[in-house]
Amino acid sequence: MSERPILHEHSESGNCYKVRLTAALTETPIERREYDIMKGETRTPEFLAKVNKNGRIPVLQIGDRFIPESNAACHYLAEGSNLIPADRFDHADMLRWMFWEQYNHEPNIATMRFWIGWVGLENLSELQRLQIPLKREAGDAALKLMDEHLDGRDWLVGSGMTLADVCLFAYTHVADAGEFNLERYPKIVRWIYRVKAQPGFISIDA
Amino acid sequence: MSERPILHEHSESGNCYKVRLTAALTETPIERREYDIMKGETRTPEFLAKVNKNGRIPVLQIGDRFIPESNAACHYLAEGSNLIPADRFDHADMLRWMFWEQYNHEPNIATMRFWIGWVGLENLSELQRLQIPLKREAGDAALKLMDEHLDGRDWLVGSGMTLADVCLFAYTHVADAGEFNLERYPKIVRWIYRVKAQPGFISIDA
Repeated sequence: MSERPILHEHSESGNCYKVRLTAALTETPIERREYDIMKGETRTPEFLAKVNKNGRIPVLQIGDRFIPESNAACHYLAEGSNLIPADRFDHADMLRWMFWEQYNHEPNIATMRFWIGWVGLENLSELQRLQIPLKREAGDAALKLMDEHLDGRDWLVGSGMTLADVCLFAYTHVADAGEFNLERYPKIVRWIYRVKAQPGFISIDA
Repeated sequence: MSERPILHEHSESGNCYKVRLTAALTETPIERREYDIMKGETRTPEFLAKVNKNGRIPVLQIGDRFIPESNAACHYLAEGSNLIPADRFDHADMLRWMFWEQYNHEPNIATMRFWIGWVGLENLSELQRLQIPLKREAGDAALKLMDEHLDGRDWLVGSGMTLADVCLFAYTHVADAGEFNLERYPKIVRWIYRVKAQPGFISIDA
């Protein structure tokens, strides 16, 4: 059995990129297994039985055990590194941004990117089409909140880069693919360059 | 300045109950500030400026600092208690269930409860009405996944109760208010009794 963590992923997914970026920043070697979500490769009986009953990627495999949910996988990899603050308040504050990402940011910004870039607007259901204005509004509200928070701050939490930055970077830096205009958010733009300048940084297509 | 954490909340919200339950189980005294979300009391300029720019409760106040996001507030309160596993894998696995709760469980099960019990089905928008069958299906899928996971297990993670149980208990045990039929999930029903039997347990209306 490999002692190296195995990432079950669809590499273009921002949720999977978060885990690779965390591994790179913490210098953790990982193996990668690619699945084509558009062909239903994460909904096969074998995947559901062995890797994740929830039929989603990423999943981080540690020996014969599995961690679904991107942000939880990042937390596993970053344990003991300076991407997780030792301070009790800062640790909770980091998790606050990570939960916010999954509730307020990803369902709007990542979904718009997926609908436009993978599914195609012309293939959306009526219900999905009706949701576009709300997702557009909620996505812009999320970006505005980040932009205001980053006013006068280099990082989302405390004085250094944490998993909050890694996990929010993933879909924020490609938000234009969901037709969000990042030029409206200058503090986010500078924060994106700051993340890219970090030692060990890798891009989403690396 | 009070050293006792202050919970800014709407007490009937399951997300707020999570934080109170964590405080009770860890024997942490807290103060409570009630807001009426139906009257927009968490969207006032004062609330947005001082407590949470995202206009949501719960928010846990520590001195003059604030932690939004229910699961992050629970993590703060439970730090150092046995509700957070010391083992690295189990810690990540606990967070996995907490992120899953916010992405797959709460938006379906809590939203149905809110629409039926607070908003009223007759007051929903056309878009909300169209989402009901999908939320019903996704909510039942979430409950089925929990039920299967609890087959042969007392707790969601490891061998003892963790924040994963606390955070998933909050909206699961009142899922009938969203017209989900818990009798279909016997392992969940037994787990609910197990949570209620814990020393320090308090009910949602306590």
